[in-house]
Amino acid sequence: MTETASARVAEPTVVIVGGGFGGLKAARALRRARVKILLVDRQNHHLFQPLLYQVASATLSPADIAAPIRHILRSQRNAQVILAEVAAVDLGARHVGLADGRSLPYDFLILAAGSRSSYFGRDGWARLAPGLKNLEDALEIRRRFLSAFEQAEQEEDPERRREWLTFVIVGGGPTGVELAGTLKEMARLSLPREFRRIRTDRARVVLVEAGPAILANFGSGLSEKAVQGLERIGVEVRLGLPITAIEERAVQLGEERIPTRTVLWAAGVAAVPLGAGLGVPVDRIGRVIVEPDLSLPGHPEAFVVGDLAAFPHGPGGPLPGVAPVAIQQGTCAAANIQATLDDRPRQAFRYRDKGSMATLGRGKAVAHVGGLSLTGYPAWLAWLFIHLMLLVDFRSRVFVFFEWLWAYLTTQPRARLIVGGHERAQPVEPGAQDPTGRSGSPPR
Amino acid sequence: MTETASARVAEPTVVIVGGGFGGLKAARALRRARVKILLVDRQNHHLFQPLLYQVASATLSPADIAAPIRHILRSQRNAQVILAEVAAVDLGARHVGLADGRSLPYDFLILAAGSRSSYFGRDGWARLAPGLKNLEDALEIRRRFLSAFEQAEQEEDPERRREWLTFVIVGGGPTGVELAGTLKEMARLSLPREFRRIRTDRARVVLVEAGPAILANFGSGLSEKAVQGLERIGVEVRLGLPITAIEERAVQLGEERIPTRTVLWAAGVAAVPLGAGLGVPVDRIGRVIVEPDLSLPGHPEAFVVGDLAAFPHGPGGPLPGVAPVAIQQGTCAAANIQATLDDRPRQAFRYRDKGSMATLGRGKAVAHVGGLSLTGYPAWLAWLFIHLMLLVDFRSRVFVFFEWLWAYLTTQPRARLIVGGHERAQPVEPGAQDPTGRSGSPPR
Repeated sequence: MTETASARVAEPTVVIVGGGFGGLKAARALRRARVKILLVDRQNHHLFQPLLYQVASATLSPADIAAPIRHILRSQRNAQVILAEVAAVDLGARHVGLADGRSLPYDFLILAAGSRSSYFGRDGWARLAPGLKNLEDALEIRRRFLSAFEQAEQEEDPERRREWLTFVIVGGGPTGVELAGTLKEMARLSLPREFRRIRTDRARVVLVEAGPAILANFGSGLSEKAVQGLERIGVEVRLGLPITAIEERAVQLGEERIPTRTVLWAAGVAAVPLGAGLGVPVDRIGRVIVEPDLSLPGHPEAFVVGDLAAFPHGPGGPLPGVAPVAIQQGTCAAANIQATLDDRPRQAFRYRDKGSMATLGRGKAVAHVGGLSLTGYPAWLAWLFIHLMLLVDFRSRVFVFFEWLWAYLTTQPRARLIVGGHERAQPVEPGAQDPTGRSGSPPR
Repeated sequence: MTETASARVAEPTVVIVGGGFGGLKAARALRRARVKILLVDRQNHHLFQPLLYQVASATLSPADIAAPIRHILRSQRNAQVILAEVAAVDLGARHVGLADGRSLPYDFLILAAGSRSSYFGRDGWARLAPGLKNLEDALEIRRRFLSAFEQAEQEEDPERRREWLTFVIVGGGPTGVELAGTLKEMARLSLPREFRRIRTDRARVVLVEAGPAILANFGSGLSEKAVQGLERIGVEVRLGLPITAIEERAVQLGEERIPTRTVLWAAGVAAVPLGAGLGVPVDRIGRVIVEPDLSLPGHPEAFVVGDLAAFPHGPGGPLPGVAPVAIQQGTCAAANIQATLDDRPRQAFRYRDKGSMATLGRGKAVAHVGGLSLTGYPAWLAWLFIHLMLLVDFRSRVFVFFEWLWAYLTTQPRARLIVGGHERAQPVEPGAQDPTGRSGSPPR
């Protein structure tokens, strides 16, 4: 007993902040290490973010793409999960301060706290155009999307009805593209028979991208294919103009004013503020610039991985904030901790890009995998297969498979529920006070 | 065209308030009637309330037991669904006033707006002991239940830890019994391996019933069997004493003080306030006293069904607020409207009691069906079968079946997510202000 206890005392403590792809992978990679792992997250669940848009579009339920972190790590005896918010990290004293006042000393630290939606300094937009980063966001988008049709059904004035039936999605990356496609398909295929006074299939879904192309890093061929695919199902794609104003009842796009009640934000992310508080160099969106081995300059015991890290050492500059980068970095940071414990040299991180893919709607996708460009049905099947395989635990795979099968065969996804809030019937209350104190139309 | 239009104008309007069991059944029963049906609900979904406790206990997701009312009525061309809150009913002028100011004139009215949790005038208890009436309630209970284990895991003080691991359920009707059984099973079977510092299987679940028996209207034999069944899995059952105080950290039960952080309310319901505003006689819990044909005295065109109705004409006094009563009354009210349209005499409502059943935990239930008393596994299978059959649409049946099969085989229900609110880590904040202005401990 005493021996075990003293052996346990001697084990170094690894604190991991964040139970997303990077943090969870690091914890699992250390499962045989003689360390004590404390994984801290403010949510009780790991979230499979690549499918979050399907919760927003009411195809999947939260439980299909999220699993309790405790459950995932239940058999890993060297890991403890702590549900708490991290307030600050003291790199010098080597401890993590929690919002409830407690302090966790560490021997090794892995920061994997991720990113958040960023509005380029126009914080008043956050209320008008919710982003899609967590389950709450997804349920809020679902609520606004479904409520808009309810409002339109009850609206007598044709102009106002048109506003309710117009959806603007800002940002032409994978999230924006997949959201636009799935929402348009819902309006086109799932909802029409349910409404008596409106034609849901005529709802406008406008995808706005400030740059010259959507899915820019997929390569130009696929980018054009994606535009064609979206336009074929009726999504309007607008390229090359930034949104300059978001108001209660319209967005401004260059000279054009698009009347709309529902704006969704997939345009920008920034690292969580934790990174900027470390006192080490960060890039312009708050990501911590790491060494080749993913540690912090001057702090070989502290690592940063995933969306919170800026890794400028490989070809092509900082890596994109996607799950594969986080997973591979989590593995690498864990391996470098193990190497240090074993007195072996560390490895430099190298990203193995396995490709990119995005769905465009029912049976349609674009994919760039292993040097191969796929479009249409083959790309969609590849997307389906890979995402099912990536889902973290077996049971989610089974249920998601059946949900998808169901939705595909019936065009009737199951989760079309408006739950929570008093916004049920009024997703955006006209004239409501902006809690930030700014007006809906920010200064230019 | 003109003919159709004028024919349509001549069709009487039936306004149905509430898309629960009673209202929805009435709407469907009128599917071939030459009427225009307006179904008003403030939620977009019909909720299968008998399984709501399984959303609270994280076995099912909201989408498993709720379906959009529009979706259910999509093929019924004479029905329109209106998502709105009803503010008042003017029986004299024959119109329903909505909270947004609109007014719906009717020729026939069916009020099926249901019930809400009632705290016997101690409204301050509502915040401390949430009831279980809708999806928001269920998710709140789930949040508190799961968060309590998180708090216990992090608590150093053994006394406070004990408080977090004690759950008091007030009310020994079917809801309280099923909630107690399922929460105890979760603590006993699903959670133990996930926590490192607490023994979740030692969590206390206390079921408190002020009367002399739980499941009182099942008959005394089954009531005792239910107590035995619950005690076998470790639920403590306390009979014959009312709760006299609910505080942040304890409940008072006669002389006994039970320290606890989590109190759940299944003790009392009252009709929604709409009934009391009609200007017709109501009973002591606000239910509208109806005529034998379910209409209102002096208003043969207005019907009240389900939990909002008090039906004193049969044997055994007012009927219980359960789904079969609401369904049968919805059918009866629709038939009486049809009879009036056809100039036939109306029928008086007669309740056909098909029995009662409640689960006690994994593979255990009590049931009184067709004069037969069942217990244990046979009762549980009967419960399973009947509830699957009752689920409103086919797809929910399929998915619920698989969720149950999964949970049964693995003891790992899928929906253990803490979502929403800032209460994540602190479900009941000590010292928080009671929004009602009352203290946690109400005057006796």
